[in-house]
Amino acid sequence: MQEQAIAWRHAGDDIGVVPTMGALHAGHDSLVARARRENRRVIVSIFVNPAQFGPNEDFDKYPRPFDQDRNRLDALGVDAIFHPSVDQIYPPAFKTRLDPGPLGDVLEGRSRPGHFAGVLTVVLKLFSLTQPKRAYFGQKDFQQVVLVRQMVRDFALPVRIVAVPTVREADGLAISSRNVYLNPTQRQTAPVIHQALTQVAGAFTAGETEPARLEGLARERLAAAHGLTLDYVSVVDETTLRRPERAIPGSVLVVAVKLGSIRLIDNVVLGAERP
Amino acid sequence: MQEQAIAWRHAGDDIGVVPTMGALHAGHDSLVARARRENRRVIVSIFVNPAQFGPNEDFDKYPRPFDQDRNRLDALGVDAIFHPSVDQIYPPAFKTRLDPGPLGDVLEGRSRPGHFAGVLTVVLKLFSLTQPKRAYFGQKDFQQVVLVRQMVRDFALPVRIVAVPTVREADGLAISSRNVYLNPTQRQTAPVIHQALTQVAGAFTAGETEPARLEGLARERLAAAHGLTLDYVSVVDETTLRRPERAIPGSVLVVAVKLGSIRLIDNVVLGAERP
Repeated sequence: MQEQAIAWRHAGDDIGVVPTMGALHAGHDSLVARARRENRRVIVSIFVNPAQFGPNEDFDKYPRPFDQDRNRLDALGVDAIFHPSVDQIYPPAFKTRLDPGPLGDVLEGRSRPGHFAGVLTVVLKLFSLTQPKRAYFGQKDFQQVVLVRQMVRDFALPVRIVAVPTVREADGLAISSRNVYLNPTQRQTAPVIHQALTQVAGAFTAGETEPARLEGLARERLAAAHGLTLDYVSVVDETTLRRPERAIPGSVLVVAVKLGSIRLIDNVVLGAERP
Repeated sequence: MQEQAIAWRHAGDDIGVVPTMGALHAGHDSLVARARRENRRVIVSIFVNPAQFGPNEDFDKYPRPFDQDRNRLDALGVDAIFHPSVDQIYPPAFKTRLDPGPLGDVLEGRSRPGHFAGVLTVVLKLFSLTQPKRAYFGQKDFQQVVLVRQMVRDFALPVRIVAVPTVREADGLAISSRNVYLNPTQRQTAPVIHQALTQVAGAFTAGETEPARLEGLARERLAAAHGLTLDYVSVVDETTLRRPERAIPGSVLVVAVKLGSIRLIDNVVLGAERP
C-alpha cells in the first residue's frame, strides 16, 4: 500500500484516508463521500485494531463482514481498500507505542485504559502506510478526534484531520457498528441519548451556560430511561477536554451510557447549527 | 522548514537529514559528508532536546556554540540548517509521547530513565518537519540507532536510517561533544575504552565467541585504568539488544564508563573490518 500511496503523492495526487474497523454503515459512507469530494485518491483502511480493545472487550466478536464491506466500498467508488492482517501491522517484534498523555485517561479513557494509546499507535502507522493529505473521522468518537488532532499537532504531521458530523437513524440514535448488539428493548430505549443531547443543546441556545446545569438536564433525562446506566456526562472544551467555567459555542457535551453490557457514546457541539 | 522540505520532496529531490544537538565536531562532519554524497538536499537540525535529558543531567550547561556550528556547516555546504526553539518543538500544549518499550530500559536506558522516549519523540517530530528519505546517526550512540530503527520499522516510516562509523581522535577516543568536559588526567585515561574494545574485537576474530569471556576481557582492561568506573559492558545483538548465546559477526560490544562525573559510551561491531 505504501509504495502505491507514495507514488500517488509524487504524482501530485492528494490522498484522503478513511480509517475504519469495517462493519461499514451509513456513518462510514458519509466519511467516504466527504473524502471523495475533497481528494483525487481515496483509501479506506479496514483493520480491527487489537491494541485499542481492552482484555474484557469485544475484539474477538467484533463483526468482520469483509465481503459486504468491499461491495459497499466498490459501490461508493474508492481507489484502494487497505485491509492488512494483524501481523502486518503488529509483527512479533513490534515494540514502540504512542502515549496520548493525560487526555487519554479521562472520559472514555477512564473506562478503557490503554484504548487511546492503541488508537494513536495504529493511526500513526496507517498514516505512514497511506500518506494522507486529509484523514476522515466520525464526530461520534469525539475524544478520538481530539487525541488524533493532538498527535498531529504535537508531531507536526502533514495531514489535516477532518471530523465528519455523526449520521443518525431516523429516531436519532447515532449509527454505530455496535448497535447490532442491542436487543429490541434496548434498541427502543437508545434514542433517549440523542433526545437528552438535543434538549441540552436547546437549553444552551436558550441561554443556559452553567456546565453543571447542562449536565444535570442530560442526567435527569437519561435517569428516566429504563435499563440504562449512565457512565459519564460532561461539558468539555473541544481542544483541551477540560470542563469550562461556562459553556461557549463549540463546547461539547459528551455522554457515555450502558444498555445491558452494550456501551454507547454520543455527543453534541453546543451552539452548532446541526446538533 | 516543513513547507520547504515538502516542496523539495514534491520536486523529486531526496532529502538527507542529520539530526544533531549542535556543538559540531568531526563526527558530525562525517554524517554531513555522507548525507551530502547520497542526497540532493541536506538538512542539518540543531536542537538541544530537553526531553532526552534527565533532571540531574547537563541540559543547561550543554554547549551551544551556534555561530561556530553555522560557519562549520556553511563550509561543508548544506541546503538548510533547522534550528528551532524549544517552544517550536514543544509548545505548552504538547502532550503525546513515544514509548520505546523494553529496549528503552536497558543499557543506557537503565542509567537514563526516559532518555530514549525523549529521543524518539524529537526524532519523529524532526522527521515530520524535514521529510527525510535518509537520516544519519552516529554509530557511537548505538542504542539510539537501534531504537530509532525500531520506531521506523514499527511505524513503517518511509525513511532509511544510516548508521555512520564512529570518528575517533588519533589515540582512539570516540569524538563526542562531551569530551570537552574531561580534565587533562581524564583525557589521558579515556583512550583505554577504545583499547579495550579493540582487544575484544581481536579476541573475537581469533575465535573467542563466549560473551562472558569477551566482556571479561574488556572489564579487566578497564579495571586497570585509574579513576575510571565501569557502568556496563555487554555483548548484544545488533537488532534486539539481547545478549546472544554466542557472539557472531555483527554482534556489538557496548560499554559505558564514568570518568569522574563524565559519562562516556563506545562500542565495537565484532567481525567488522573497521573496529
